[in-house]
Amino acid sequence: MDEFALIRQYFTPLSRGFDGGLSLSDDAAILPSIPGCDLVVTKDALSEGVHFLGSESPDLMAKKALRVNLSDLAAMGATPLAYFLAIMLPRHVESSWVAEFARGLNEDQELFSVYLAGGDTISTQNSLTFSITAIGRVPTGKALRRSHAQPGDIIYCTGTLGDSALGLQLLQRNIAASISDAVQQFLQQRYYIPEPRLEIGKLLSGHVNGCMDISDGLLQDISHICRASNVAAIIDKEHLPLSHAAQSLIAQNANLWPAIYSGGDDYELLFTAPADQQEAIETIADKTNTPITSIGRIEEGSGVTLMDAGQPIAIDKAGFNHFSQK
Amino acid sequence: MDEFALIRQYFTPLSRGFDGGLSLSDDAAILPSIPGCDLVVTKDALSEGVHFLGSESPDLMAKKALRVNLSDLAAMGATPLAYFLAIMLPRHVESSWVAEFARGLNEDQELFSVYLAGGDTISTQNSLTFSITAIGRVPTGKALRRSHAQPGDIIYCTGTLGDSALGLQLLQRNIAASISDAVQQFLQQRYYIPEPRLEIGKLLSGHVNGCMDISDGLLQDISHICRASNVAAIIDKEHLPLSHAAQSLIAQNANLWPAIYSGGDDYELLFTAPADQQEAIETIADKTNTPITSIGRIEEGSGVTLMDAGQPIAIDKAGFNHFSQK
Repeated sequence: MDEFALIRQYFTPLSRGFDGGLSLSDDAAILPSIPGCDLVVTKDALSEGVHFLGSESPDLMAKKALRVNLSDLAAMGATPLAYFLAIMLPRHVESSWVAEFARGLNEDQELFSVYLAGGDTISTQNSLTFSITAIGRVPTGKALRRSHAQPGDIIYCTGTLGDSALGLQLLQRNIAASISDAVQQFLQQRYYIPEPRLEIGKLLSGHVNGCMDISDGLLQDISHICRASNVAAIIDKEHLPLSHAAQSLIAQNANLWPAIYSGGDDYELLFTAPADQQEAIETIADKTNTPITSIGRIEEGSGVTLMDAGQPIAIDKAGFNHFSQK
Repeated sequence: MDEFALIRQYFTPLSRGFDGGLSLSDDAAILPSIPGCDLVVTKDALSEGVHFLGSESPDLMAKKALRVNLSDLAAMGATPLAYFLAIMLPRHVESSWVAEFARGLNEDQELFSVYLAGGDTISTQNSLTFSITAIGRVPTGKALRRSHAQPGDIIYCTGTLGDSALGLQLLQRNIAASISDAVQQFLQQRYYIPEPRLEIGKLLSGHVNGCMDISDGLLQDISHICRASNVAAIIDKEHLPLSHAAQSLIAQNANLWPAIYSGGDDYELLFTAPADQQEAIETIADKTNTPITSIGRIEEGSGVTLMDAGQPIAIDKAGFNHFSQK
């Protein structure tokens, strides 16, 4: 495989649809300024053995890498424009692998109307690593922020929590439970390809105070909102939204609860809104056909408390943190 | 080390000076639109054992990672605004290492007026890898491009060529030559910290047709201009600009010539301009106190020819290409 031939064959076609990518033939991409808009820029890194297993098919890895970045754009209320991919390939990778990877990107590009605008392809002796930088647009001054949560706000999340963490544990054969193939499949799929909540993010503008996406686990991520906004959060365990699949596992083994509130990779939106926005938020849930659940409230103070049947419960480990674990 | 404490302690201070970075406390950065400007976005990945040795001090690695991206902005004629850093740290890295790395970034941020606006810090079992995304601004429609070289253009490069490749060979003890410490030091320094030609890039707007930076070796990079512009290039070996240090090595061992025209990591600008721009280009060289040398010409056709004393010479290997070598 030749680096430049590989780019031309597999990646240049992914830049069609975005003129500023200059067909990936230049040193950089050009993004014309968009009157009335701010740009929103996010960058994530994903590494085999940390963010994905390495046994996934290449198209699934590609989709996850792109989607976790789109989820960050969703959390800011932005509409995706373009993305940049740095891909660090182990030397033994075959061009058929790259073809599958590019096919996965292409499918998601069509789904989310976003285009490859540049990047870098290098070979290393390392295991597989990517970094994606995604750029979106948002009306000037309207980006959603973590730091504006207010005491009295209700805390909401989209979708259901913990499916991805349970899916990973099933893939790693860490759970002994009698479950159907359909349940297993659903949870694993939630781990493999998260659903960036772009439509909801856009609709939330003007209705919410603090917003982010849940990537490191609910309790850890709400603590980021609290820290950025100088407030405290109370989360009600009994209100956390569980899928039928998660319910069937939890019913067999209550020790799996931490996967719901501390498991990573949910990529659901977590936001806070004044009580008078409840109807607007219900309308957004209906419009996007996605559950949005109130799971707690913001108070004055600091820190996060998880309540169960009116009592605070102890938390061993709030969520994923690079460096602080083996 | 705790991931979030590490970000707050070492990286958040690097975001001061750029409001859109939101103190690195949000999911993404916000870049307000700049009337009359396009944004230019570039992304490079650097990996231990490929782009740096791994034995460098952390501040030097930081500077190189940033500068190779600034060099891409220079090649488009852009002024740096902000950058995003994804850093993939081996688990054994100490916080003192991160402190040194951040110190290097801080020094170069001041030098080049650019700020950290976001990114990601992950731990991996891999060796050290970074990806930087750099964003600059350029007056609307004025970005320099690779694809506009014209037959009849003169080919120019800034600075001197091959120093970095020779410096690397010295560091790897691949060269047996009697040279002074000063020569050794100079060449190694050229490898460690490239000089992004930002000022020259900005001044070239309106005077040049094709432009890029030399990162993979002169002959390979001019071939990219030729391919993007559908033209041929003739390079005159005897006109290639050599530093005194490179001259002293080449004088002892003519087999080192390929380091000059095929060695990577020059990060000099390579551009083509109509003959009537010669005076303007000389003025830019004077103004920036940097040599700019005419090294060949663009013709109709395709491909790159290296001439020596009026005869084309054979080239074994044009430059660096990931995947095509062991």
